Amino acid sequence: MSAIDTTPVAPLTVIGEDCSALARGAAILGTGGGGDPYIGRLLAEAAVRQHGPVPVVQIEDLPDDAVVLAVAMIGAPTVMVEKLPSATQFAEAVRSLAAYRGVTPTHLACIEVGGVNSTTPIVAAAELGLPLVDGDGMGRAFPEVQMVLPTLSGISATPMSLSDEKGNTAVFDTIDNRWAERLARTATVEMGCSAITSQYAMSGAEMKESYVRGSLSLCVRLGEALVDARAANEDPVAAVADVLGGQVVFAGKVTDVERKTVTGFARGTAHIAGMADDTGREAVLRFQNEHLFVEVDGRARATTPDLVITLDAETGEPITTEGLRFGARVRIVTAPADARWHSPAALELAGPRYFGYDLDAVRFDGTTSPGVRA
Amino acid sequence: MSAIDTTPVAPLTVIGEDCSALARGAAILGTGGGGDPYIGRLLAEAAVRQHGPVPVVQIEDLPDDAVVLAVAMIGAPTVMVEKLPSATQFAEAVRSLAAYRGVTPTHLACIEVGGVNSTTPIVAAAELGLPLVDGDGMGRAFPEVQMVLPTLSGISATPMSLSDEKGNTAVFDTIDNRWAERLARTATVEMGCSAITSQYAMSGAEMKESYVRGSLSLCVRLGEALVDARAANEDPVAAVADVLGGQVVFAGKVTDVERKTVTGFARGTAHIAGMADDTGREAVLRFQNEHLFVEVDGRARATTPDLVITLDAETGEPITTEGLRFGARVRIVTAPADARWHSPAALELAGPRYFGYDLDAVRFDGTTSPGVRA
Repeated sequence: MSAIDTTPVAPLTVIGEDCSALARGAAILGTGGGGDPYIGRLLAEAAVRQHGPVPVVQIEDLPDDAVVLAVAMIGAPTVMVEKLPSATQFAEAVRSLAAYRGVTPTHLACIEVGGVNSTTPIVAAAELGLPLVDGDGMGRAFPEVQMVLPTLSGISATPMSLSDEKGNTAVFDTIDNRWAERLARTATVEMGCSAITSQYAMSGAEMKESYVRGSLSLCVRLGEALVDARAANEDPVAAVADVLGGQVVFAGKVTDVERKTVTGFARGTAHIAGMADDTGREAVLRFQNEHLFVEVDGRARATTPDLVITLDAETGEPITTEGLRFGARVRIVTAPADARWHSPAALELAGPRYFGYDLDAVRFDGTTSPGVRA
Repeated sequence: MSAIDTTPVAPLTVIGEDCSALARGAAILGTGGGGDPYIGRLLAEAAVRQHGPVPVVQIEDLPDDAVVLAVAMIGAPTVMVEKLPSATQFAEAVRSLAAYRGVTPTHLACIEVGGVNSTTPIVAAAELGLPLVDGDGMGRAFPEVQMVLPTLSGISATPMSLSDEKGNTAVFDTIDNRWAERLARTATVEMGCSAITSQYAMSGAEMKESYVRGSLSLCVRLGEALVDARAANEDPVAAVADVLGGQVVFAGKVTDVERKTVTGFARGTAHIAGMADDTGREAVLRFQNEHLFVEVDGRARATTPDLVITLDAETGEPITTEGLRFGARVRIVTAPADARWHSPAALELAGPRYFGYDLDAVRFDGTTSPGVRA
């Protein structure tokens, strides 16, 4: 059940009015964070209905001199579900950055594929009549601006724009991507804990070097695999693990969730009492927007940068950290991140120690990350 | 001693290498805030030495289509004295705003005349080879971005730029000037509680409508009056009050100072035990960067928007709120603000109630402000 599924994937060529499979897959890759995919789906579908389908371009097919801007929602997912963005905010963020850089974008892109940020760029692309790149900067979701593969290639997050639903915009131009995170985060908090950003302007050539390929196609495939498994009376959780080349590592019932919205993030912990084969064991999930790691009986079972995914035990539907409820029956899937996340430099950027845990990175299969320094 | 001095003022035509009189006058108009004038003076004098004198233009002489950008330091004066700006930060803030607006500035201006912000625009003007306007947006110093007369004329503070000493820049474009304050303040705090800003881009025509005239000339005249009085063995405190058309309202010894740097501001209270004619009475100063009001024996004697100025009792040298020390002998001068600050709309912007005090505005002479609604 844990071998990588090598079925050829039909790449996505267009995003139409039904974004359900894409949003469901995005929620899985969101590893608990990245915002409510239902809201992202509604916004994307409304934009496509109004402006027409969005063409999708494979990274290989991008001209080297393409001008690509990434678009995302930034802030605390706990707030995003209560404070909806305005319809014009997405395009406004793109226009603001394009004007600042003095460029005319040829394509838009997702910077993170997980959660709401797989679908938010669709809104901007539909409104601006631009094609969307089938890829992203992480192959998952991470909570901070600098935590993307382009940072490892020396690509600047800035100039980056922020726009809020009231009509305020900001542009930051920083000395490094950590400063982009610091300044954008405080502005986002002041804007009400969620905003739309355009960032990581890149050429086609830079995208080919630093981006994860086929991310939107993977979302659709994941979403379809989940629904197909249910329709065929097969195990949807196992189907998700199969598509991702991952493992089902724990089954249990949520006994406690502690959650705070601090410095613009949703941080917290969830305790899960084992059931079925895991009876008598306990798992603990720790998250900052996304799940950072899962411990089983006090030992790290899998950590960032690999994926820790919580699914409904029966339906296989992904559960975001803000959706974790006492008594919910869940299964936890771990899956490999893009291999580039396992270099020493990448672990410094997004490994457990960055998040304040004195812990070496553990891979989805329980082995030590190759990037851990001896 | 409290009649307005009507001696004709020779307007300033150039700023040379000696900024001592200008900086001393600026510290008086800074009403306790606006940062250490000594630092501003050193920076301005160094810039003039390196780049040559800065021409000064009267507001009347500005072409109506002049493109004027204001330059200022933003943040907590308590921090400014410890974290010096870099020499290039001033010009960087101007360049950043000019590029964002796609304009070539013809002149620079002070937005506030009090404290360090009378001298900071000299640094940018010298480096960029631009003339400086003899005027400012307040006729004093105030702690928040929106607290300027141009706000009352409907002129936008934004687009505004921020630059820090590390090389980070930000540009904000907001729906109103209160939002400019909110977003710029949080970014300033993140940048280390002090930054350089360029803001309130205006045409010559807009300057003529909304600016205070002759502010830099007034600084020089105040600074010279103080030094001349001392040289002539006259009372320098009375000389300052004379030039401003103000009053000496209290003399005493500082018995207690409470000071906090919160949300990017220096806030606090100083208690002063009366001496000489004021023996047995107590004055209390309340400040947020600048003195907001002075109470004598529990009754407001003068409040914002009029000026409350603390001077050394003997030398007449202005004392900033961060320079208030236990045991210091001080005299308090009150003086009238520009008349436009006494409209109802202006009192909403910068009267005592804005700062959270349930208090009607009291003029420098103890009468009720004409802008107070019955």
